Amino acid sequence: MTTALQRGRQLTQNLNPDLEEVLRDRYDDLLPDFAESLIEWAYGRHYARPGLDLKTRQLCTIAALTVLGGQTGPQLKVNIEHTLATGAERGEILEAIWQMAVYGGLPAAINGLNAAREVFDAQDGISATQA
Amino acid sequence: MTTALQRGRQLTQNLNPDLEEVLRDRYDDLLPDFAESLIEWAYGRHYARPGLDLKTRQLCTIAALTVLGGQTGPQLKVNIEHTLATGAERGEILEAIWQMAVYGGLPAAINGLNAAREVFDAQDGISATQA
Amino acid sequence: MTTALQRGRQLTQNLNPDLEEVLRDRYDDLLPDFAESLIEWAYGRHYARPGLDLKTRQLCTIAALTVLGGQTGPQLKVNIEHTLATGAERGEILEAIWQMAVYGGLPAAINGLNAAREVFDAQDGISATQA
Amino acid sequence: MTTALQRGRQLTQNLNPDLEEVLRDRYDDLLPDFAESLIEWAYGRHYARPGLDLKTRQLCTIAALTVLGGQTGPQLKVNIEHTLATGAERGEILEAIWQMAVYGGLPAAINGLNAAREVFDAQDGISATQA
Amino acid sequence: MTTALQRGRQLTQNLNPDLEEVLRDRYDDLLPDFAESLIEWAYGRHYARPGLDLKTRQLCTIAALTVLGGQTGPQLKVNIEHTLATGAERGEILEAIWQMAVYGGLPAAINGLNAAREVFDAQDGISATQA
Amino acid sequence: MTTALQRGRQLTQNLNPDLEEVLRDRYDDLLPDFAESLIEWAYGRHYARPGLDLKTRQLCTIAALTVLGGQTGPQLKVNIEHTLATGAERGEILEAIWQMAVYGGLPAAINGLNAAREVFDAQDGISATQA
Repeated sequence: MTTALQRGRQLTQNLNPDLEEVLRDRYDDLLPDFAESLIEWAYGRHYARPGLDLKTRQLCTIAALTVLGGQTGPQLKVNIEHTLATGAERGEILEAIWQMAVYGGLPAAINGLNAAREVFDAQDGISATQA
Repeated sequence: MTTALQRGRQLTQNLNPDLEEVLRDRYDDLLPDFAESLIEWAYGRHYARPGLDLKTRQLCTIAALTVLGGQTGPQLKVNIEHTLATGAERGEILEAIWQMAVYGGLPAAINGLNAAREVFDAQDGISATQA
Repeated sequence: MTTALQRGRQLTQNLNPDLEEVLRDRYDDLLPDFAESLIEWAYGRHYARPGLDLKTRQLCTIAALTVLGGQTGPQLKVNIEHTLATGAERGEILEAIWQMAVYGGLPAAINGLNAAREVFDAQDGISATQA
Repeated sequence: MTTALQRGRQLTQNLNPDLEEVLRDRYDDLLPDFAESLIEWAYGRHYARPGLDLKTRQLCTIAALTVLGGQTGPQLKVNIEHTLATGAERGEILEAIWQMAVYGGLPAAINGLNAAREVFDAQDGISATQA
Repeated sequence: MTTALQRGRQLTQNLNPDLEEVLRDRYDDLLPDFAESLIEWAYGRHYARPGLDLKTRQLCTIAALTVLGGQTGPQLKVNIEHTLATGAERGEILEAIWQMAVYGGLPAAINGLNAAREVFDAQDGISATQA
Repeated sequence: MTTALQRGRQLTQNLNPDLEEVLRDRYDDLLPDFAESLIEWAYGRHYARPGLDLKTRQLCTIAALTVLGGQTGPQLKVNIEHTLATGAERGEILEAIWQMAVYGGLPAAINGLNAAREVFDAQDGISATQA
């Protein structure tokens, strides 16, 4: 039987193969085991679970990060990239964000749209000049 | 061309046919046009949009209401019912809620699971005794 | 020159004459000086300031407690009473709450309306049966 | 009878005549009907309602955006401009923001004051150097 | 070398020996592995870490659950019990809660004090009548 | 007997001797008495209270500002400096922040770690290049 850590590592191999290494380089000097711990919890204990397909899981994450607003800007952008990697279309991501205006208010939704545009423009090679 | 209000009314016919009337009875004496305004905005301007299927829209709402936590208990329960009405399985709803532990913290996810259990128990005719 | 504590006490004399005593009875055994400290800060250092009239200050508080949602239910009800005591009409309070749907989302606004109805019904001698 | 969209457009003519066009240019390529939808909901279904004067509505918005904090910085600045356009004085806006320290905590209030200073300095032609 | 799950189980043995079983009975029918997953993450990957003593960790949790407010009431009460189990005095817990008025606003702090009183009264055999 | 303002001033003398003056220069032109009011409330009415040691109080503040997330970035950095001034080690601060992943979610904790790194790097004379 695989452990949660193994399942998490397997899943991120497809979604974002450098993720654990990037996290280790950035945070393990501050907090030993940070990267391993995050992969185990977020990917091994959640995204790797059966019962809901990965694309829908990612769209749910987009929705949550949008309504949580201010404190989740950088994570929203990373997860928009992960969501595209699961096969979601840009339009689906934008719809999930905009719908959040109903639940988290207009400012949260608008900031989410701005984050999406930054990701799309970066992928399209357009320099972001959005203030 | 249909207006947003018409599109919203059409959509709620399938999802929850009494919704506008329930809202009107409950709130229009306090705020004239409340029910019409909510149907137009939430259902006409969001759920009725093309680009993302209704079941995924509802699962995104579940995710958002879970991380928003305390202020959204009653709405979470209504939306769990709406999500089941789009054909989602109980397990999919539970997965979407539990995943939110990563983004909104454990308390938000646990409270979301409690709300789901209340809805399921009510549907199964089990009297809720959860405190 | 009066101190902030004196200014706070003077202001609550008009708004809610028993407030400091109620707070003292309820919390000073847990935390000595709790009541005095709250009166000094909230009423002496904020509501008693010149530059904005008391009724508008109270309506701003209603708006803030509405968007803050879940954690502020009891305080929202107390402040609806205080706002009525400044001469605001019920309709003005309801409008301030409902407008918050734009900024804090529909669930926050609906919960705020429910709180207002409970206050109004209690004043009208109608027993609250709202779940 | 006018529709909510018409009432919203009429109101923004006075408050910020370019608003719908700015929103259309910025977001309608991502989400068709975004600008129309926002004007209908926020201005037609809320600010255009009778029962509370526009200046008080705007001050309530300032209060709400202040306590919501991080996710509403850009919207707070736009609404400070709208509030000045309703005839409110700078001092009234600052008082509404500072009072929010009681309900949303000191960090939220201080960040709100920083946003106000940026708007006032921009209007006075002072280059913002605040970090 | 022990795994995170083993370290989490060891730590909860002292803090709250029935915790995993209570969680398993309550949630594992909804979500297989829920209890194991929570013990591994919260206790194995956080509370069991070296570098900060357990009592201070618990007081930090009290502070966080207080400012998070509405959505964390049940968890705040459980963690007040855990904090007492680490040797903290009631007064220390009350001070940590009250200080949060500065950062999360008065409503959050007052609701935290109410939660503490409920825990203390239950331990003292006083029936809770607080509304 | 000393007043709350005097107790607050005395405490900040040790923690951050320039604090009141910095606050007065930055905000008293906008809001007369701002600095005095903040020192009285936050430091005189909270940090100067007996019953919990100053270092633990500061670590609780770190925890709270971490879970509050987006709206508290600047205040988190100031309070990390204050916490170091009470004798806390960097590792203790990092542990308090990381533990918040359990309660406020991963994004809040990661943003808190980024803030801590900025403070530490600035103290070590390393130019912050973290995006």
